[in-house]
Amino acid sequence: MSDAAVWHTTYPSELANNTSNPIRKIVDGIKMPKNPVKPMILLSLGDPTVFGNLACPDVLTDAIVRNVKSHKHNGYIHSAGTEAARAAIATRFGHADAPLTKDDIIIASGGSGALDMAITGICNPGDNILLPKPAFSLYKVIADAHKIHVRYYDLLPEKNWEADVEQMASLIDNRTQAILINNPSNPCGSVFSKQHLQDILAVAEAHRVPIIADEIYGDMTYGASTFYPVASLTKTVPVISVCGLAKLFCVPGWRVGWIAVHDRNDILKDVRAAYFKLSTIVLGANSLIQSAIPDVLTPATGSADEKSLATFKQHYYSTLEANAKFTLETLKSIPGLNVVVPQGAMYVMCGINLDLLDIEGDLDFTQKLLDEEAVFVLPGQCFNIPNFFRVVFSAPQDKLAEAYERIRQFCARHTK
Amino acid sequence: MSDAAVWHTTYPSELANNTSNPIRKIVDGIKMPKNPVKPMILLSLGDPTVFGNLACPDVLTDAIVRNVKSHKHNGYIHSAGTEAARAAIATRFGHADAPLTKDDIIIASGGSGALDMAITGICNPGDNILLPKPAFSLYKVIADAHKIHVRYYDLLPEKNWEADVEQMASLIDNRTQAILINNPSNPCGSVFSKQHLQDILAVAEAHRVPIIADEIYGDMTYGASTFYPVASLTKTVPVISVCGLAKLFCVPGWRVGWIAVHDRNDILKDVRAAYFKLSTIVLGANSLIQSAIPDVLTPATGSADEKSLATFKQHYYSTLEANAKFTLETLKSIPGLNVVVPQGAMYVMCGINLDLLDIEGDLDFTQKLLDEEAVFVLPGQCFNIPNFFRVVFSAPQDKLAEAYERIRQFCARHTK
Repeated sequence: MSDAAVWHTTYPSELANNTSNPIRKIVDGIKMPKNPVKPMILLSLGDPTVFGNLACPDVLTDAIVRNVKSHKHNGYIHSAGTEAARAAIATRFGHADAPLTKDDIIIASGGSGALDMAITGICNPGDNILLPKPAFSLYKVIADAHKIHVRYYDLLPEKNWEADVEQMASLIDNRTQAILINNPSNPCGSVFSKQHLQDILAVAEAHRVPIIADEIYGDMTYGASTFYPVASLTKTVPVISVCGLAKLFCVPGWRVGWIAVHDRNDILKDVRAAYFKLSTIVLGANSLIQSAIPDVLTPATGSADEKSLATFKQHYYSTLEANAKFTLETLKSIPGLNVVVPQGAMYVMCGINLDLLDIEGDLDFTQKLLDEEAVFVLPGQCFNIPNFFRVVFSAPQDKLAEAYERIRQFCARHTK
Repeated sequence: MSDAAVWHTTYPSELANNTSNPIRKIVDGIKMPKNPVKPMILLSLGDPTVFGNLACPDVLTDAIVRNVKSHKHNGYIHSAGTEAARAAIATRFGHADAPLTKDDIIIASGGSGALDMAITGICNPGDNILLPKPAFSLYKVIADAHKIHVRYYDLLPEKNWEADVEQMASLIDNRTQAILINNPSNPCGSVFSKQHLQDILAVAEAHRVPIIADEIYGDMTYGASTFYPVASLTKTVPVISVCGLAKLFCVPGWRVGWIAVHDRNDILKDVRAAYFKLSTIVLGANSLIQSAIPDVLTPATGSADEKSLATFKQHYYSTLEANAKFTLETLKSIPGLNVVVPQGAMYVMCGINLDLLDIEGDLDFTQKLLDEEAVFVLPGQCFNIPNFFRVVFSAPQDKLAEAYERIRQFCARHTK
């Protein structure tokens, strides 16, 4: 037997080499203060559970407790999810104008797994996909890993982060496999109007390009904003919608997401079949959690569960709405920041006025804010847009008030 | 807006087109009797939970109940798994001769997700991987989807399904990225001896090829057979071991698997990093289930949990061992069958003696057995070996007795 030293290093695959999360790189470059000057306040993580003020509904907890004790939900299930869970999703997320059956639903390991499947099931290496800018970084991570080219259409802060629809149309060529939209938006906290969605659908229609709609924050809207599932606004454009339990029920760690295929005239017939095939590799999401999906998505009309879920939703969304309002009012009064009104999700993007502040950009802003005030927000570069920072406003309001006061003092100190 | 009819069908990606599960195809070709002649007995599914005689340990159920009620395990966790879960896995599956730390563990969506990551993180399209024949079909499904070439080494029934090591060595070339072994084996129910594992390690050593070891049935052995984790038998060959909660604790639907990277002299340094990168796409396994991993893998010495888990394991394994013994004794007495002694897991492979029976092969055998006796076993072709069938023997013994009696009558009826 020869000496181990002559083994060469085993190289990872291109797939792995091409997998790179820009948030990770940027965040790893930010230095966490070892002895923060004040108690740290993290407004960086898009996870409504971190502060303990928002919990999942009792109906969900109770169903899990009941079902884990029954020992009846521990075995293998269909790779695309149980029929009961898929039927409940189809019922809850189908619309009169865009009906769904269980055979349109493919359950995956979280919204991320569903996005991975949605994109890689439809794009070959060398194909391209249209992505919003700024955007949740995972879309590009998935595309890069599979050598799918990315073309960005801008979201315009001056138009409340609506897409530049003309630019979107100009990017499409014969290798464009999908237009990806994210509504309500992470990181923007914006909600597209019906008219704007119709404008985007017109682009898709004119160029015969399907839409992949990341609607994981659907329904989480405030004030006058209403969420329209894009599939409900078209009879002709095929839509691949992605959603999951994470944000609906405050359980992002539970990893249950899904694809809903809204086909039109069998345009997506083969793609739907492809998603079912792809599901056979990783075998979807946890059987125990899936067992509770009908309980939370389709409670019986007039039941105690229905009322309990309505109470949960009312508390959850009204807490976020109050936080959105408080955030807007507080941050917009700070000289040096240009706050874009949040309409949904749990995010707000703040522009940094470099003319007013002695700050070099979003990385400089976030690092100094962390060093001087122990408040952590994500720099816009994490979402592919410079000179903004993203605030997650799901924390309790006293924490937000403290954080925003520190931001005010920080900006005042850094005013030129 | 133009007519929808001019939209062409959207084509799925090559990745999806190349994803094809041979078991699915074969099983879909088998016709289930609409009005079975007798109550159906399914001995086809490798899932110990289907008959209700084997349940997961109370320690696991209790931990889930406690943790779901706490609302503290619902949020995002590290993409490769929580530190506590990875540390517990490292402690439980590390050996004096092959130590592990949490930084060697990558948690994935089930054993399948871990295998997907293990293979695609190390192989590019056009590379090759050595697979056993017969084998669990997923290895080839993953390889095919990613255009990784498959080369088969035979497992020899006359040698209790040991690998043909000379043939294995002859298959290796400069694009061979890994030798995959599965021990204990699905579908064979075989357990490799220490000497045989050392022979395989010698091949890997001589050709400088890492081993991917699917050890999901580790420890599930009977009689004189002992399971040796292959990593514990080498100081020089790098081993990527795959395991999970599924078979250890009777929860295959819960989708918690992992990779343990047993590196040697930094040969897998970049591969380990690659696995962590790949984990950032799909974000691993459910946070709630992960919260219970330390409870079941590393109970405190002398604790009630430790005793309870020992009782569970004793009951679980002794049930399977008694079933293995009963299966062997019963089936080997049936003329026309050549039973290979099961040593582990919950499977036995039976050869079909076509000289004695008026049967055309394994598909013919399984279809006729289903039609005439309402007993369903999987044909060997599902595992890439003709003229065998696989029996899953996790059912209660009275069910097994009934099924085996029907098989005896079937074989008697079909004796030439």
